[in-house]
Amino acid sequence: MNELRTLLRDEIGLEPHEIDRFIQKLVLKEFQPKQELIRAGAIARGIYFINAGLLRTYHLLDGKEITTYFACDHQFISTYSSFIEQKPSFEVLEAVEESKVYELTHSSLMELYEESSKFEKLGRILAERNYLCILDRTIMMQTKTAKDKYLDFIETYDKKIVQRIPQHQIASFLGITPESLSRIRKQLVSS
Amino acid sequence: MNELRTLLRDEIGLEPHEIDRFIQKLVLKEFQPKQELIRAGAIARGIYFINAGLLRTYHLLDGKEITTYFACDHQFISTYSSFIEQKPSFEVLEAVEESKVYELTHSSLMELYEESSKFEKLGRILAERNYLCILDRTIMMQTKTAKDKYLDFIETYDKKIVQRIPQHQIASFLGITPESLSRIRKQLVSS
Repeated sequence: MNELRTLLRDEIGLEPHEIDRFIQKLVLKEFQPKQELIRAGAIARGIYFINAGLLRTYHLLDGKEITTYFACDHQFISTYSSFIEQKPSFEVLEAVEESKVYELTHSSLMELYEESSKFEKLGRILAERNYLCILDRTIMMQTKTAKDKYLDFIETYDKKIVQRIPQHQIASFLGITPESLSRIRKQLVSS
Repeated sequence: MNELRTLLRDEIGLEPHEIDRFIQKLVLKEFQPKQELIRAGAIARGIYFINAGLLRTYHLLDGKEITTYFACDHQFISTYSSFIEQKPSFEVLEAVEESKVYELTHSSLMELYEESSKFEKLGRILAERNYLCILDRTIMMQTKTAKDKYLDFIETYDKKIVQRIPQHQIASFLGITPESLSRIRKQLVSS
């Protein structure tokens, strides 16, 4: 919770009483590995700040899971388009490992926006980060070789994600086959 | 300008004096067809509200122009990642037709954010819309047939864009060849 307080104070510029107001709205929830926080077809009820754990979003394409995002300790995650539009989600949000998360519901966030436009800054920063994230992935998919995709991934992402996400999920995130990923990893170890 | 006032009042909830303050920051500029508002490698100085005209963003991939976004009258456009991060743009923003646009510079927007967090809502809404836009295009690219991509495009996009953007730019936006687009258009006319 201290990490969230620090983020709200330093990055969003909220005053102590605004931070308290924000934190009053959160509900702590626990999820087991493979448990779904948001199902495909359901409306994303909340956005989640991860206290401890590892989660991902994915969707099905021709029967295969395509992982689109990973997040771990002290990061936010949701099926974001469903959350902002309050329309059924085409993605699933699931726990990869046992996870403790703080849920902020959409209605709570709308109440905060109503109470003070200072909370809008949090909404803006989240939306801008999500935009940059999806743009990075799109460009990476279009322009990089399989090896460069993986090198970028291990440089950019949190160590916990790199080390503990199953390889087939990383492969689908990078848009390469598990066999290709395994070959690249072997090359890197032996070079 | 009335369209911008209406948007700021109805969608962002700004008061008349805040709308005036916003509008004081704008500079009206005119661009000729093919003129670049933002060059590749330059930092996006502004975000543009289109008074009248037609613009697009594109980047080069293997020497080919890939169009990533179109906008026309009463819409916003920029090379958005460069604008929010104030880093060199990998994309070009250019006028497709003669265009009159209101420029809001990054520093002016930062001043508005400082003056009142009510302007943050505009930043949030723009970031959320840009997120949804890039997500739609990514999903469209991954999941739709060439014909469905085109049908979606003519349904979703403003008539001015559909009718006046050159066909090869539409094809690159949809990730299909100009020949394939031409075939689909003939099929649709004859069916």
